[in-house]
Amino acid sequence: MSDCEKKVPEVVIKRLPRYYRYLGELLNQNITRISSNALSEKMNVTASQIRQDFNYFGGFGQQGYGYNVEHLFNEMGEILGLHDHDTMIIVGAGNLGRALANHNAFEKRGFKLVGMFDNDKKTIGSTVNGVKVMPVDELETFIKENRVDIGILTVPKSAVQETAERLAKCGIKGLLNFSYTELELPDEVTVENVHFSDSLMILSYNIRHRGEE
Amino acid sequence: MSDCEKKVPEVVIKRLPRYYRYLGELLNQNITRISSNALSEKMNVTASQIRQDFNYFGGFGQQGYGYNVEHLFNEMGEILGLHDHDTMIIVGAGNLGRALANHNAFEKRGFKLVGMFDNDKKTIGSTVNGVKVMPVDELETFIKENRVDIGILTVPKSAVQETAERLAKCGIKGLLNFSYTELELPDEVTVENVHFSDSLMILSYNIRHRGEE
Repeated sequence: MSDCEKKVPEVVIKRLPRYYRYLGELLNQNITRISSNALSEKMNVTASQIRQDFNYFGGFGQQGYGYNVEHLFNEMGEILGLHDHDTMIIVGAGNLGRALANHNAFEKRGFKLVGMFDNDKKTIGSTVNGVKVMPVDELETFIKENRVDIGILTVPKSAVQETAERLAKCGIKGLLNFSYTELELPDEVTVENVHFSDSLMILSYNIRHRGEE
Repeated sequence: MSDCEKKVPEVVIKRLPRYYRYLGELLNQNITRISSNALSEKMNVTASQIRQDFNYFGGFGQQGYGYNVEHLFNEMGEILGLHDHDTMIIVGAGNLGRALANHNAFEKRGFKLVGMFDNDKKTIGSTVNGVKVMPVDELETFIKENRVDIGILTVPKSAVQETAERLAKCGIKGLLNFSYTELELPDEVTVENVHFSDSLMILSYNIRHRGEE
């Protein structure tokens, strides 16, 4: 990572995964170089915005004739922390938890699912995508004995604050929260909330404003 | 909606659901007025950014002592199209489809699930959250006989382009795509892609850059 790193605005951070995904697609197509203009068209961001975004990370050395796709892809992966191969557990093995456990894109990005937890006796002991569902009671022991970087919360809303606190006490530093509740946690815990209904509302807006240019 | 509406940047559109959610929370707490400064603190957006955002929609008449929360909430809902009570179908009744069918926040925002479809004989005929799972073969007939505004795609990646094309041919104007594939569709169809792994990558970044201010 570059030494000249500055505080990066949230909107720029939110664009990083899209850059990463798009660069991965280019690599799959054996495209080795791309200009900021071409990148701009695909990404629906202006070329100058792309240069500004990249400047937060040292600029990635565009040399007139464009960026080296593989270099940029790797740098972006490094910035996103994907090369550290973070390990994850999923707490809540209902429909959503199971869907996420089967979600290949996580592993493709370098994240590894190491455990699932539930308190439903019918679910405990079953296996989802090769990972065993354990009783929630065993959370603390499991985390003590295994490296767990990220907790994915797919428990019911009523249980999410308590579950998050337990994970925080065990030293887990990142939570992906699907339970639509703002969590109150110690400062050292980072939370990313996933709101399905936000996507639906954005779609609803865009349907109505299609073609306004 | 205001007459002075301009083309609204994507970043602003993406903030609208957050404004809407937060204003709903304020209403629940019986808070009737809020200053752009107070809104700014909670939303992690500068007060001037909030005023700029709102100006795209006519400004909502802040009068020195702040915004009327209920008025702003209703206007925001109107802008997002929530008062039209769009109807939705879910194609793909696997774990993710079932999780979304049970997702209360959709109905709370005014969206109504009217049908689910799958091609798995074991699933067809079952009921999820009061909605029957029908065979995918019946998609066209169902859409002809019922108002369907939005299609939610939770089919496997290999089936998503074909399914999307079928929905587009039936005149569905909005698709929420969970299948991580860029769809190629006629211009009049609006697509919103949901990428779980983007959220995970943003979390991964934020874990590593916590506390950089």
